[in-house]
Amino acid sequence: MIRIAIDAMGGDLAPAAIVKGAIDSLSSCPNTKLLLYGEEKAIQEECAKYQYDTERIEIIPCSENISLHESPVMAIRRKKDSGIVKGMKAVKEGEAEAFLSAGSTGAILAGGQLIVGREKGVLRPPLAALMPTRQGVTLLTDCGANVDAHPEWLVQFAKMGAIYMKEMLGVPSPTVGLVNIGAEEEKGNALVKAAMEKCKEEKDLNFIGSVEARDIVEGNCSVVVADAFVGNVVLKMYEGVGKMLLSEIKSGIKEGGPLSLVGGALISSALRKRMKRFDAKSHGGAPILGLKGLVVKVHGNTDGVEITTAIRQAKEFAEKGLPKKIAAALDFSDEKEGSEGE
Amino acid sequence: MIRIAIDAMGGDLAPAAIVKGAIDSLSSCPNTKLLLYGEEKAIQEECAKYQYDTERIEIIPCSENISLHESPVMAIRRKKDSGIVKGMKAVKEGEAEAFLSAGSTGAILAGGQLIVGREKGVLRPPLAALMPTRQGVTLLTDCGANVDAHPEWLVQFAKMGAIYMKEMLGVPSPTVGLVNIGAEEEKGNALVKAAMEKCKEEKDLNFIGSVEARDIVEGNCSVVVADAFVGNVVLKMYEGVGKMLLSEIKSGIKEGGPLSLVGGALISSALRKRMKRFDAKSHGGAPILGLKGLVVKVHGNTDGVEITTAIRQAKEFAEKGLPKKIAAALDFSDEKEGSEGE
Repeated sequence: MIRIAIDAMGGDLAPAAIVKGAIDSLSSCPNTKLLLYGEEKAIQEECAKYQYDTERIEIIPCSENISLHESPVMAIRRKKDSGIVKGMKAVKEGEAEAFLSAGSTGAILAGGQLIVGREKGVLRPPLAALMPTRQGVTLLTDCGANVDAHPEWLVQFAKMGAIYMKEMLGVPSPTVGLVNIGAEEEKGNALVKAAMEKCKEEKDLNFIGSVEARDIVEGNCSVVVADAFVGNVVLKMYEGVGKMLLSEIKSGIKEGGPLSLVGGALISSALRKRMKRFDAKSHGGAPILGLKGLVVKVHGNTDGVEITTAIRQAKEFAEKGLPKKIAAALDFSDEKEGSEGE
Repeated sequence: MIRIAIDAMGGDLAPAAIVKGAIDSLSSCPNTKLLLYGEEKAIQEECAKYQYDTERIEIIPCSENISLHESPVMAIRRKKDSGIVKGMKAVKEGEAEAFLSAGSTGAILAGGQLIVGREKGVLRPPLAALMPTRQGVTLLTDCGANVDAHPEWLVQFAKMGAIYMKEMLGVPSPTVGLVNIGAEEEKGNALVKAAMEKCKEEKDLNFIGSVEARDIVEGNCSVVVADAFVGNVVLKMYEGVGKMLLSEIKSGIKEGGPLSLVGGALISSALRKRMKRFDAKSHGGAPILGLKGLVVKVHGNTDGVEITTAIRQAKEFAEKGLPKKIAAALDFSDEKEGSEGE
């Protein structure tokens, strides 16, 4: 039985969307028990809307909630009765195998480090997100956890990402690339140049060198490594450009008059089919890699679908023992201990 | 008379595309004289294909050419008889007001600094590109010149960008934002946090704080400032995602069968109209700001259209005396001298 702790109060449409997503997962995820953390009455009201196996969902009342606008580290230290703190404690104490939240990214990252804790040898746990590409999916890591990274961190992000793609997505020997601003040897900033040299030395890594931002969405590379600032810019540009272009196309069709509208109707089902795999919802959440248990950040505007997907992923992640595999596969003999950082 | 030096050998389709773009500009850009640098015979052959006022085009023979694959700084120092070196020297010596090239970005940037030279007080000259957005255009600066930037450089990029948008595009009080990974005060890396504080102190700047990558293409901000690594990732993601999505949409319509193909035909003219302003060609080249003369980098795959646009821009830039205005508008009383860097 895999127990998954869920922050029922995190996200724009919480708790309704979170409860819906959790209950929707029950049928396709046998052998799971879901622990919903949050305001008891509000969660009960949402649960009452569905028919489900009540044995498999437990509500753990919390009197506090961490908002998007408070300092993450302070919130984690002070709000002991929040769903994020209690849910992560459950993971730390072995009462749950995974924790999911669509709440404050900062608080989830801080809690992951401060409460769940890093696996031995992990310098910094990166946030990793699956990005749809023309050829399938690519894991982008780090997409938001550790700014001002050191070269050694990027090497670990690369290793952890490769394990994720191999174990979770069955890619036999995942290709790994570093986000860079040109393919030439001498290009890049100080961080990328140093990380490039270190990645080349890693014999276990199927390292292909630089990946230009322009090529990421083509999907020629399974794992794309960047420091958190650059990774976040990549992710947000993808989201922003995609949203803007699709909306412009819709407006263009509307402005084109009656014939253009008919044309729009004729292409819509084919387009929907083709674009379906670019729907981020089907890729669930972004796991933090390198922690002692699984912590997953789900997009804040989830309507519940990503929660269902993330629960399925979390179950698989836990069943396959990914945290231990990541720790075991990293060779820390000549690396600094994880306790070096804050 | 504005004299514009042009590297006729730079770009994937040179010299044909460059010569075509240059000759096409003659009718819409009166009072210009174009100096074409490169292989004399090849340029003459291209010129022979057109009818034009031969007084307004001069060929300056060059025996060398700088390729994309050589070290930019070494190439600038050694290849004294290349179009990039000779064209930039013409700008430095007052024989031309501007220099344009679709060749090696690295060589153009290196030449700009080493040959044309910075205006007094300019710490680092950024590469600035006009990006089409939902609301018009936004100037992205620095999009490729100075990696590992210092906070003071970003402040100057902001000031120079604002002057460009005001003078060249007539935006009365251009809004300026810093690319960041969240709108909250505490977010960002060390560089962005420091630059944020400094930009806030600049009373002449209409500074609006953080801009998330997701919002850049919406166009709420006239000048978007970033260090060159991040700026380049923004630009290349825009290009890559746009290209990939439009190609996926075309494939989707094709796969949808006959009705979908009819639909595609019905929307095509409306779509083409709507998407026209997202065509990067209409925005010409990316100027390097803060040099003693104008240097413009044109996209390497130009078919000539960007050359024509860039010539028009360069003429306007020179006529309005932008280099001097940029130097004058920056208050350098308490800044380090430009001679500090390499």
